[in-house]
Amino acid sequence: MPLDHTARGVYVIAPTPFHPDGRVDLASTDRMTDFFLQQAGCDGMTVLGVMGEAPKLDQAEALDFATRIVRRAGKAGIIVGVSAPGFAAMRALARGVMEAGAAGVMIAPPPALRHDEAVATYFRQAVEAIGNDIPWVLQDYPQLFQVQMPPALIRRIVTDNPSCVMLKHEDWPGLEKISALRGWQADGSLRPLSILCGNGGIFLDFEMERGADGAMTGYAFPDMLAELVRLCAAGERDRAHDLFDAHLPLIRYELQPGVGLAVRKYVLMRRGIIASDAQRKPGSGLSATAKTEVEYLLGRLARHDPRARV
Amino acid sequence: MPLDHTARGVYVIAPTPFHPDGRVDLASTDRMTDFFLQQAGCDGMTVLGVMGEAPKLDQAEALDFATRIVRRAGKAGIIVGVSAPGFAAMRALARGVMEAGAAGVMIAPPPALRHDEAVATYFRQAVEAIGNDIPWVLQDYPQLFQVQMPPALIRRIVTDNPSCVMLKHEDWPGLEKISALRGWQADGSLRPLSILCGNGGIFLDFEMERGADGAMTGYAFPDMLAELVRLCAAGERDRAHDLFDAHLPLIRYELQPGVGLAVRKYVLMRRGIIASDAQRKPGSGLSATAKTEVEYLLGRLARHDPRARV
Amino acid sequence: MPLDHTARGVYVIAPTPFHPDGRVDLASTDRMTDFFLQQAGCDGMTVLGVMGEAPKLDQAEALDFATRIVRRAGKAGIIVGVSAPGFAAMRALARGVMEAGAAGVMIAPPPALRHDEAVATYFRQAVEAIGNDIPWVLQDYPQLFQVQMPPALIRRIVTDNPSCVMLKHEDWPGLEKISALRGWQADGSLRPLSILCGNGGIFLDFEMERGADGAMTGYAFPDMLAELVRLCAAGERDRAHDLFDAHLPLIRYELQPGVGLAVRKYVLMRRGIIASDAQRKPGSGLSATAKTEVEYLLGRLARHDPRARV
Amino acid sequence: MPLDHTARGVYVIAPTPFHPDGRVDLASTDRMTDFFLQQAGCDGMTVLGVMGEAPKLDQAEALDFATRIVRRAGKAGIIVGVSAPGFAAMRALARGVMEAGAAGVMIAPPPALRHDEAVATYFRQAVEAIGNDIPWVLQDYPQLFQVQMPPALIRRIVTDNPSCVMLKHEDWPGLEKISALRGWQADGSLRPLSILCGNGGIFLDFEMERGADGAMTGYAFPDMLAELVRLCAAGERDRAHDLFDAHLPLIRYELQPGVGLAVRKYVLMRRGIIASDAQRKPGSGLSATAKTEVEYLLGRLARHDPRARV
Repeated sequence: MPLDHTARGVYVIAPTPFHPDGRVDLASTDRMTDFFLQQAGCDGMTVLGVMGEAPKLDQAEALDFATRIVRRAGKAGIIVGVSAPGFAAMRALARGVMEAGAAGVMIAPPPALRHDEAVATYFRQAVEAIGNDIPWVLQDYPQLFQVQMPPALIRRIVTDNPSCVMLKHEDWPGLEKISALRGWQADGSLRPLSILCGNGGIFLDFEMERGADGAMTGYAFPDMLAELVRLCAAGERDRAHDLFDAHLPLIRYELQPGVGLAVRKYVLMRRGIIASDAQRKPGSGLSATAKTEVEYLLGRLARHDPRARV
Repeated sequence: MPLDHTARGVYVIAPTPFHPDGRVDLASTDRMTDFFLQQAGCDGMTVLGVMGEAPKLDQAEALDFATRIVRRAGKAGIIVGVSAPGFAAMRALARGVMEAGAAGVMIAPPPALRHDEAVATYFRQAVEAIGNDIPWVLQDYPQLFQVQMPPALIRRIVTDNPSCVMLKHEDWPGLEKISALRGWQADGSLRPLSILCGNGGIFLDFEMERGADGAMTGYAFPDMLAELVRLCAAGERDRAHDLFDAHLPLIRYELQPGVGLAVRKYVLMRRGIIASDAQRKPGSGLSATAKTEVEYLLGRLARHDPRARV
Repeated sequence: MPLDHTARGVYVIAPTPFHPDGRVDLASTDRMTDFFLQQAGCDGMTVLGVMGEAPKLDQAEALDFATRIVRRAGKAGIIVGVSAPGFAAMRALARGVMEAGAAGVMIAPPPALRHDEAVATYFRQAVEAIGNDIPWVLQDYPQLFQVQMPPALIRRIVTDNPSCVMLKHEDWPGLEKISALRGWQADGSLRPLSILCGNGGIFLDFEMERGADGAMTGYAFPDMLAELVRLCAAGERDRAHDLFDAHLPLIRYELQPGVGLAVRKYVLMRRGIIASDAQRKPGSGLSATAKTEVEYLLGRLARHDPRARV
Repeated sequence: MPLDHTARGVYVIAPTPFHPDGRVDLASTDRMTDFFLQQAGCDGMTVLGVMGEAPKLDQAEALDFATRIVRRAGKAGIIVGVSAPGFAAMRALARGVMEAGAAGVMIAPPPALRHDEAVATYFRQAVEAIGNDIPWVLQDYPQLFQVQMPPALIRRIVTDNPSCVMLKHEDWPGLEKISALRGWQADGSLRPLSILCGNGGIFLDFEMERGADGAMTGYAFPDMLAELVRLCAAGERDRAHDLFDAHLPLIRYELQPGVGLAVRKYVLMRRGIIASDAQRKPGSGLSATAKTEVEYLLGRLARHDPRARV
């Protein structure tokens, strides 16, 4: 089912599982997909994102990996990151995964864009390249991509491109941006748009209160994210914060640029979801000290949340 | 007493208190200085840093403000940020504050530097400009300054410049950097150096365990930072993390770029330390929603830490 | 006389002459001012610009230097670069030089600005800081400042701020930008605005044909620039290009970032306009090979233009 | 024949010819190849470089295009740009074109690298990815890639990687860098390395005098570049500069970022080398005014160089 603006809940950012020798680990891919969608309560998955080591896959591998997950996922929505240095590669991957049954694609702006017109033009051209029949997610991650999109520019892009159905919100700080966009929707000056939040979930408690529809991030306990979203939806503010606060020390630890993926894969491995925390080269690893720190955090977390008993 | 490599504890980053009409608030400046140094347990203060709205002061105001705090501080060490677009202004401020009795100065690299030789040359020239008799702090804050200094480059700068006595560590991620530097000191390939940590304190729990000497950051509860440093020094690992974790939701909220200073000033005002949370123009403010979020966080924190009962 | 939108001709970017020991060279300052304004045919001068080593002067020196030139200049217009990391310093210098009789000031955007609203806001705040009674020049130099201002953003800034009277155009490429702005003026959607061109003059031949009012750059033969502007105004296209082309090899050589100032000061010294090519530390110098290259270029130029016989 | 450090002369940067409808124009590709290698006196070609619209081709198109030129080229050396966001794509293209008979590949650093160790590590990993049996060209283009490599870092990379046989030098300014590298080769501290210069050729006159081996750039008169290299090799300094100076106004006009490719393709079309100046979308075009400017420049050039009579 194609993605639309009613999407909500948790679309977990999935890593790409590798064997220690660098091959894609298909068994872990299947197990991870099943865990995320059937046990963890996620509504969908996003693959080949920043945390998915996408550039380390060649074109055929990327399409195969996404296709395998799409097929395994059944009715859950799979979003595929298709950002690329050129529109030919973007189009090829986007058309390929949509034919395979993906729900939509995600596009980030290239780092060189420096003013509103350049950003707006880029997304118009990207949509022209992939075709305006593919629902897509606008990724707003200024820290990584160095492109800043204030609310008015997001509204312009959304208005220009009817096939844009979701904002992946990971500006930082970003709470006022959610409020501004939701305010415009309330007064009718912006059409409906799903807003899912990234940044490792480090502001998800308040992002939900500001009006976000859920999370799209790769924190290694997406089951907690799903529970948090449910608590917020149920108006259980204090319980939501209690849950969030218990996880915050680890959320914070996972949010380290570069190192974060290694932490995430390590925790997923310790939870038994993937077989190995290997990254395809060139990858980063955890030092022995870092591993003891993660274990210490898991131990502390386990006092509050049995899911952390690994 | 001049700063040297034995400095440890908390050197709180002080904001510059303003009246709502934009004048420097001298009474609040004195009250804040007394609170930080006599009640909160800080070992020193750092003024005119990034959070100090330094560029909004003209040259005379900056010198007056720093001098007032130096005089009020008595024996506690005051460090003054002297980063400037040119060496003439840097020298003038550095010589001025040292004559007034400051303990040392802090220098950040300008954003355009893009390779090791350029960075090393810059600091040699800066030391030549201010004079090699002034103890100084090397500020390593790549997120803000866009200059990256891996451990080997820090060692080179420290070795080149005997008057460099401290690293203000706010790389992110940064834990392995502390371990690398401490390892070199253990094997004799790097001379002693104080390492105080910034980044709003968001990794202070583990930074202390990696060998940091303390904190240099502006979190609005420096009394907690001081307690945390003491707990870590006493080997009370679990109690240190318990204290840290209770504050982490607010630490995280304060760490928002741009907005962070507004949160910080608001909390300091609510604690009665400064009279107003005004920023000199152009300043950022807190929305009504943001204020309720801060109050909610203070309320939750107060269940664990009575200092948050405001 | 205050600067206004009718300004045209050549406002030469003046270097700051130093003695080899680093003191400002006042005699050379006076001689240079006289040469530029009385002999070279310049209509004005711009001091404390990027090429003026402005950050190496402290606040008092900068004001003294600008004031001396303003007084010496008589009726010719002196524009003073007042870009600063904070508005306090910007205001102090701007008010100071205007009281001394400057014609206007020039403001560049700080490098961190990344979207239209941020840029527009910055200039509104800058004008509020210096006062809306000071005529000012908008400096558009994306290569150096990393801030991109497409024509629509320039129009917005000019429209927002009635005291903005001139664009210093040094975008690259930039010819279409001039055409776009002049087109809007022709159709009434942009008020009159002086456009003077920088970038070392390397596109001045075609910039004049696109509608520029003249040059604001520091090429060491401003007398040639003034002659070129006159030839263009007189419709002498081929003669203008002949003159320009004869100088282009040296213009190109001067346009090297960093090294350019050393070339410029060397040529001004060889022309007898300033006594020394010294830069205040930290400065760049010319290698012996580079000096022979400049001499070779001067020799070749002298076959076409007797002004190059030094 | 594989590329090695003895390469010299002109390796012209080839555009990718397109039909107006966006298909690769194979007839123009062949005609261009023949012209460059058989008539213009070029020693080789570089395809899929920055000016080659490489990211607009998908993986298969890129390999097909490079292969066609390699086969047409006969014994002349074809270098293929293989820079990619990930090593999987880089390896696939590099292995593919070498199997087809390319002479070597060219690799540029990704923009995010900010210190020496990061840059050196990147190239070690790239060589590991493509295999250390492929001769490669180090592209040093800080203006575009924002990565700065001072001479000592280039030496480190060259020393680390024996398969690096050439530097594409397009730092700006860059003359002293050539002198530094050649000085190290003279004193034995750097092994032999071919240095070909880019930047549109705008400093080729002096770059040759500093010791460069030739040009690797896309100026639309590579026949002039080849003649210039021969004149320099023959010690005909004044004749070399006379030739260069005649072309400099157009060289300068072509060097405009973004617009440059449109100028280049337009001139190649006017010279009858390619059938259309079309760029695959998203492309830039020349305004009517710009075209008249190019025609004017060609007309002026034709007085000195009959090759410009189009």
